[in-house]
Amino acid sequence: MAGSYTVRRVKVAIQGERGAFSHQAASELMPKTDVLPCARSVEVFDALDYLQANCAVIPVENTLAGPVGEHLDLLCEKDVFILRELRLRIEHNLIAAPGVTLKDLRQVFSHPVALDQCRNFFRQHIEIEPVAFYDTAGSVKHVMASCLSDAGAIASRQAAEEYGGKILQSGLEDDKQNFTRFFLIQKKKKIVPNADKTSLVFSLKNVAGALFKALSVFALRDLDLSKIESRPVRGKPWEYMFYVDVLRGEDEAMRKALDHLGEIAGFVKVIGDYPRAK
Amino acid sequence: MAGSYTVRRVKVAIQGERGAFSHQAASELMPKTDVLPCARSVEVFDALDYLQANCAVIPVENTLAGPVGEHLDLLCEKDVFILRELRLRIEHNLIAAPGVTLKDLRQVFSHPVALDQCRNFFRQHIEIEPVAFYDTAGSVKHVMASCLSDAGAIASRQAAEEYGGKILQSGLEDDKQNFTRFFLIQKKKKIVPNADKTSLVFSLKNVAGALFKALSVFALRDLDLSKIESRPVRGKPWEYMFYVDVLRGEDEAMRKALDHLGEIAGFVKVIGDYPRAK
Repeated sequence: MAGSYTVRRVKVAIQGERGAFSHQAASELMPKTDVLPCARSVEVFDALDYLQANCAVIPVENTLAGPVGEHLDLLCEKDVFILRELRLRIEHNLIAAPGVTLKDLRQVFSHPVALDQCRNFFRQHIEIEPVAFYDTAGSVKHVMASCLSDAGAIASRQAAEEYGGKILQSGLEDDKQNFTRFFLIQKKKKIVPNADKTSLVFSLKNVAGALFKALSVFALRDLDLSKIESRPVRGKPWEYMFYVDVLRGEDEAMRKALDHLGEIAGFVKVIGDYPRAK
Repeated sequence: MAGSYTVRRVKVAIQGERGAFSHQAASELMPKTDVLPCARSVEVFDALDYLQANCAVIPVENTLAGPVGEHLDLLCEKDVFILRELRLRIEHNLIAAPGVTLKDLRQVFSHPVALDQCRNFFRQHIEIEPVAFYDTAGSVKHVMASCLSDAGAIASRQAAEEYGGKILQSGLEDDKQNFTRFFLIQKKKKIVPNADKTSLVFSLKNVAGALFKALSVFALRDLDLSKIESRPVRGKPWEYMFYVDVLRGEDEAMRKALDHLGEIAGFVKVIGDYPRAK
């Protein structure tokens, strides 16, 4: 993580290198701001605590891989609030140094998940060996810094721009229905006027039908859920936290539902009210 | 994966090397049987399809890390049935070649998740560098095969036995509440007489309050849930499959509940009736 000075201009903390998909999401959510790359997820949240960044952009779920459990856990533990959500189409690009062509390539570096999402490409190019690397953007950085003339990388368009790489081919991913949902978060609670979605997390008392009763507080008030996710509670095996997205902002019905949920749940925390992504 | 002969004696397919935690789980669930190690999870299910193994043992959730999404997806896709469940305490052991002592160690190999679960050990031994390896049991195999005298590995007790390593220290994990839940699965549906737990997966029609209605089929019949998990549906962004465990075997109430669920859900599949783990 970068130095421990306090913020002068707006900085957005992300996990990963410059050019990561989180960087691309940050550029869409907060144009014209600078990113603060952090090696680990917990450092993204620390950057908010220590005022090294004004806000942060974190992935929370992917339509192929599922939830990002570590980020859900941190949203529950840490004192942060969701300002906006974004659904980013994950497009994988084949990137190499300028002058290098597809025919020159013998190796392609990327994160194992990205390599696995581009299997058809490697089936069509059996002369190219996929090589696992710690990070998608980092693989572009590596190819460019080492001036490799027979190797490429798979990463975001942003990574190509960031490190001066050339995109040889776009849309390498096998499944085009590949989206990642990101949250823009900050320390201070703030609700924009058009907020119409609420994310919350709660735990349940260990009684029969507890989850059904918890969901009834929304159903009985015609508040629709778009998502439910469960996460294990550390130190209490086989107990879970439930993360729920409700398609409603902060209004009378929602407040009543949350009061009602407080009667049933052991713990309730609202982690954001924000406008629904298109 | 091993050759494509058909099975003579009982073989249990597992993902990972011999000595992996799945091997330890297989030994507890099916004592005196041989394991068939498979490199990838999908190969474990293929081994059942191609009769290379009679059954398989797969992890489905961990009390610190959460669900094993890939295995939940495969349980839904593939034609298999759960026979039993097991809750295995995950104990990390420091393993080295015989004659090597703790003082000799400068490097310790293991899977990144295992290394991360033993942070206190590395804090107490700053002279030892943690080195990421593809597999816990594989790291023991590596240390033993390379006759390393200044390196150890972190893995299961089974891995030490398997490769002739010596356990230098047990219980390296920071959090003792570290359990993994495993399923014993086979192709043929079979229900043991004392089965009192049912696992199923269903999708929902995209209507308001659909999940609440789905859970009502159990709650209205006093059938208690021990677990709910959601997984993204491939090719249908922001739609989910729901995995539910019901604390009840196959009886009249359960059959009525499943019929009722069929009225509400787009898809319903029972993936097992089995006795609850202690």
